[in-house]
Amino acid sequence: MKTKNITQGSFPNSQKIYVKGKIHNIEVAMREIELADTTDKNGNVIKNHPVTVYDTSGPYTDENIEVNLEKGLPKLRKQWILDREDVEELDGLSSDYGRMRLTDENLDHLRFDHVSTQPLKAKEGKYVSQYYYAKKGIITPEMEYVAIRENQRIDEIKEKYAQHKGCPMGAQIPETHISPEFVRDEIAKGRAILPANINHPEAEPMIIGRNFLVKINGNIGNSPTTSSIEEEVEKAVWAFRWGADTIMDLSTGENIHETREWIVRNSPVPVGTVPLYQALEKVNGKVEDLSWEIYKDTLIEQCEQGVDYFTIHAGLLWKHIPMTIHRTTGIVSRGGSILAKWILHHHKENFLYTHFEDICKILAKYDVAVSLGDGLRPGCLADANDKAQFGELEALGHLTKIARENFVQVIIEGPGHVPMHMIKENMDEQLAHCDEAPFYTLGPLVTDIAPGYDHITSAIGGAMIAWHGTAMLCYVTQKEHLGLPNRDDVKEGVITFKLAAHAADLAKGFPGAQYRDNAMSKARFEFRWRDQFSLALDSEKAMKFHDETLPDEGYKSTHFCSMCGENFCSMRATMEVRELAEKAQEKAKEFEQSGNELYS
Amino acid sequence: MKTKNITQGSFPNSQKIYVKGKIHNIEVAMREIELADTTDKNGNVIKNHPVTVYDTSGPYTDENIEVNLEKGLPKLRKQWILDREDVEELDGLSSDYGRMRLTDENLDHLRFDHVSTQPLKAKEGKYVSQYYYAKKGIITPEMEYVAIRENQRIDEIKEKYAQHKGCPMGAQIPETHISPEFVRDEIAKGRAILPANINHPEAEPMIIGRNFLVKINGNIGNSPTTSSIEEEVEKAVWAFRWGADTIMDLSTGENIHETREWIVRNSPVPVGTVPLYQALEKVNGKVEDLSWEIYKDTLIEQCEQGVDYFTIHAGLLWKHIPMTIHRTTGIVSRGGSILAKWILHHHKENFLYTHFEDICKILAKYDVAVSLGDGLRPGCLADANDKAQFGELEALGHLTKIARENFVQVIIEGPGHVPMHMIKENMDEQLAHCDEAPFYTLGPLVTDIAPGYDHITSAIGGAMIAWHGTAMLCYVTQKEHLGLPNRDDVKEGVITFKLAAHAADLAKGFPGAQYRDNAMSKARFEFRWRDQFSLALDSEKAMKFHDETLPDEGYKSTHFCSMCGENFCSMRATMEVRELAEKAQEKAKEFEQSGNELYS
Repeated sequence: MKTKNITQGSFPNSQKIYVKGKIHNIEVAMREIELADTTDKNGNVIKNHPVTVYDTSGPYTDENIEVNLEKGLPKLRKQWILDREDVEELDGLSSDYGRMRLTDENLDHLRFDHVSTQPLKAKEGKYVSQYYYAKKGIITPEMEYVAIRENQRIDEIKEKYAQHKGCPMGAQIPETHISPEFVRDEIAKGRAILPANINHPEAEPMIIGRNFLVKINGNIGNSPTTSSIEEEVEKAVWAFRWGADTIMDLSTGENIHETREWIVRNSPVPVGTVPLYQALEKVNGKVEDLSWEIYKDTLIEQCEQGVDYFTIHAGLLWKHIPMTIHRTTGIVSRGGSILAKWILHHHKENFLYTHFEDICKILAKYDVAVSLGDGLRPGCLADANDKAQFGELEALGHLTKIARENFVQVIIEGPGHVPMHMIKENMDEQLAHCDEAPFYTLGPLVTDIAPGYDHITSAIGGAMIAWHGTAMLCYVTQKEHLGLPNRDDVKEGVITFKLAAHAADLAKGFPGAQYRDNAMSKARFEFRWRDQFSLALDSEKAMKFHDETLPDEGYKSTHFCSMCGENFCSMRATMEVRELAEKAQEKAKEFEQSGNELYS
Repeated sequence: MKTKNITQGSFPNSQKIYVKGKIHNIEVAMREIELADTTDKNGNVIKNHPVTVYDTSGPYTDENIEVNLEKGLPKLRKQWILDREDVEELDGLSSDYGRMRLTDENLDHLRFDHVSTQPLKAKEGKYVSQYYYAKKGIITPEMEYVAIRENQRIDEIKEKYAQHKGCPMGAQIPETHISPEFVRDEIAKGRAILPANINHPEAEPMIIGRNFLVKINGNIGNSPTTSSIEEEVEKAVWAFRWGADTIMDLSTGENIHETREWIVRNSPVPVGTVPLYQALEKVNGKVEDLSWEIYKDTLIEQCEQGVDYFTIHAGLLWKHIPMTIHRTTGIVSRGGSILAKWILHHHKENFLYTHFEDICKILAKYDVAVSLGDGLRPGCLADANDKAQFGELEALGHLTKIARENFVQVIIEGPGHVPMHMIKENMDEQLAHCDEAPFYTLGPLVTDIAPGYDHITSAIGGAMIAWHGTAMLCYVTQKEHLGLPNRDDVKEGVITFKLAAHAADLAKGFPGAQYRDNAMSKARFEFRWRDQFSLALDSEKAMKFHDETLPDEGYKSTHFCSMCGENFCSMRATMEVRELAEKAQEKAKEFEQSGNELYS
């Protein structure tokens, strides 16, 4: 297994910093962007404070850590988990399939070297989910980590700026409200989840909830005939780098088990899957052969590998299927269509629904969260907000209660294709039926006629629904509806959703959200080109575009760019305006002294 | 002057059609997209009616018209204009500059061959604007053209579908409301404009107003040291092709006069400019040397060339400048910053403001519309919706009245950089102050931190503000803030704004807006890949993306794509679900007959 083609290294003018906890002995990773000084027109040098930003890239961007994919990432949370004394190390894997793959010598060359054969599991009678701890009033290290992470050092920045009166950015920094206790309370209320499988100690804690920063998920995964394990791991590392807060491994090809092991061991963000996909592979794609036993074994297999959340389409019921018959595009969820076929073939209710309590009891043992899938999401505008969709949503509300009774953390998946004026209703209905469980939507796409640009049609809907309260957006790439995304598509998709999520943070007035924007604007006005690149969501592209016409080093500090040219640069002109205005004010004073009020 | 590298030719599976008028002898150009038949599971062949779409591409996509750039496009409106008997042909150009350029032999190689030296002008005492006619109760050929164009043959489609009950698209086609009288009334109320300089008879009439389809503008234009006339003409043709409803020529380099002549003569859409840019070139970039005389001569020069609307920053007043001093990014409008410098240098009020009535009297003679520029639009989130911006907006409201008193059509320009939650206020304020004149916005961009992706940050804001009532969106390309857009950037920008505008049409419930989406969804569900490409805003990119992984011709009709692969295609599965559901219903009937109610 070659693992050399992995993207590593820090971002431009950035370093990894670690902020210490106050309750627990923890260190929270962030990215600090160094800025150049400002020189004012009198030649005074004014320091621009570094900007700290939320960082999903993990150890890959820490120059002081040598990442070895074959060993996996450091096990950040291992000791925190053990210290709670509510888990036990198993003697071996519990799933039949996991054991079978482990003993198959033909897979040796694919297998992750340091694969754990002794996964953790909750002790008999114990609950190990962050939801359970939160209900008990316990602030875990994970919760404190998240609180510090969400704040992005706004407290410190605020203090610093208190010393710099008159700085236009000072006014933009509001009170922080993300305390560890607030995090605990939101989780206890079910308004947020902290996905953290006890078998994925490599993950840096993060939170999904509408009173926190909006998160984005990046889908990766091979499909039959395309991509290798190495490619998939690199696609994952690439997605973290650009801002994926979680990834979902949606592989449907060969060696899914081994691919997943590599990804989880090397993932600093929570990993989600749709276990039904693998279960279907196990029965060679024959939907009618799917059974609770095979599905259950798959759940256990993946729980013990360290998957942090499962999409489970348990709310698609027999009675909903007739509602889809006159739809324009029927059922467009892969999981949804599989289950509908299964139901109709067997003339039985969805086995994920009838076994939902069993499912929860398994997930609770590992703190795997459930993402209740929307198997009946609309696949086109014509089907948006219909009976089938909202019928399923009601069922998801019912399942939310069952999950919580079993101390399983739960989020709800949402659409899909929805025109702008029908977006808010989705959020309203979700809040009404699902007791404020976090909403996790795919887009929505606001028109159907732009294949090749569906990262944009969905970013429009995504920004809007996130503003209304959606906690996490699943990215959509420009290849949507057309083909499997490649590495470039993944990056374009991640950045597009990052900006949509950020737009929602701004609109929601999240504390400090505008800080980075303001730093960018200041750099822009002062023609600090390098700082503009460093502060950009995509430094590489920003610099590349700038350099296409003005590549020379000298142009990194000139007071114009090729867009308007030198004489037409408005910012350059504004500086002159300000000088003129100052002179005018001085003159005004002279006039005033002589009794004239022209400039008042 | 070489003019060979111009993109021509029809779109895939499309032809140009011409719909005849009922009041006037006119033919309205549209694009008709031919679709493949549907074969149902019983082998029955069902015809899919062609889809007619709004088409900005002009004669360039009509296979029956040979475009010769050196002769210019056919003069569609020439006879309509002459028939009104209110214009006279001048003996020569009225502007000093126009005459000077015409007699300069050094420019012969650059000059458009068939340049008109006898422009049209309103006869003494006559008004020739569409606004004037509308006020008088006259429905011009231009107005009927627009009414037919906006309807996109929805009447006919409706009739056809009336014969196809049960078709899911039938229900989506609402009543039409765009009658010629409605068009006239909206123009008479000042709620819409129909930009149509009597010296630009080549342009196909279009309308800008919030009760019509949302329009988009594409900016083109050279900047010092980059791009030639040929490149600029091709950039314009390229922009029409992908959907620009108007273009603005923002050239600031050499030979602006000649470049403009080429562009106007070959433009089937209205052309806008910012005359101040050329005026500044005439005084070699020295702002202090700008004068009313030079500006006035520039207006006349461009009126007689056929420019359809001018951006005029007449609302930026002396008193507003101090309001910008503590802004984060000052004045970011090129025109705005130039005028602020002029005001402060001369200690005089903005000459565009003091001469606004003179300006209107010139524009009225040619039916050139005024686009009141927002010289104080915010250049970053931190400056959004501030006193300077809204102060200027109030002044624009005052100028709107003056324009209308002189029968000049008027639209209002808007921001800029605005976070999502502050967007609606812009529309509300504009409606409140500017007596419902159409709003024309640049974005707004909803975050500052995504240079390289600002076509997307602005499409998010653009879609939202257009839903709230903005009539035209000025596109932003991915090069915004970084450099001059090239041909690819122009296309990407146009398509991005086309989809944003369309999303707003859908959200506003514009009659028939969803028709194309529904046709796309039906094609998607039926795996008619070629139809999906034809119906896409960007057929080329859609096909390219699809073919990256499945290039063979056979894959244009397979029931899956590389995104999910064969076994995981939900649409394919849905078809099976439907068959199973039908069987289940049959079975249910059997059960019913035997007294069983299992399937009820």
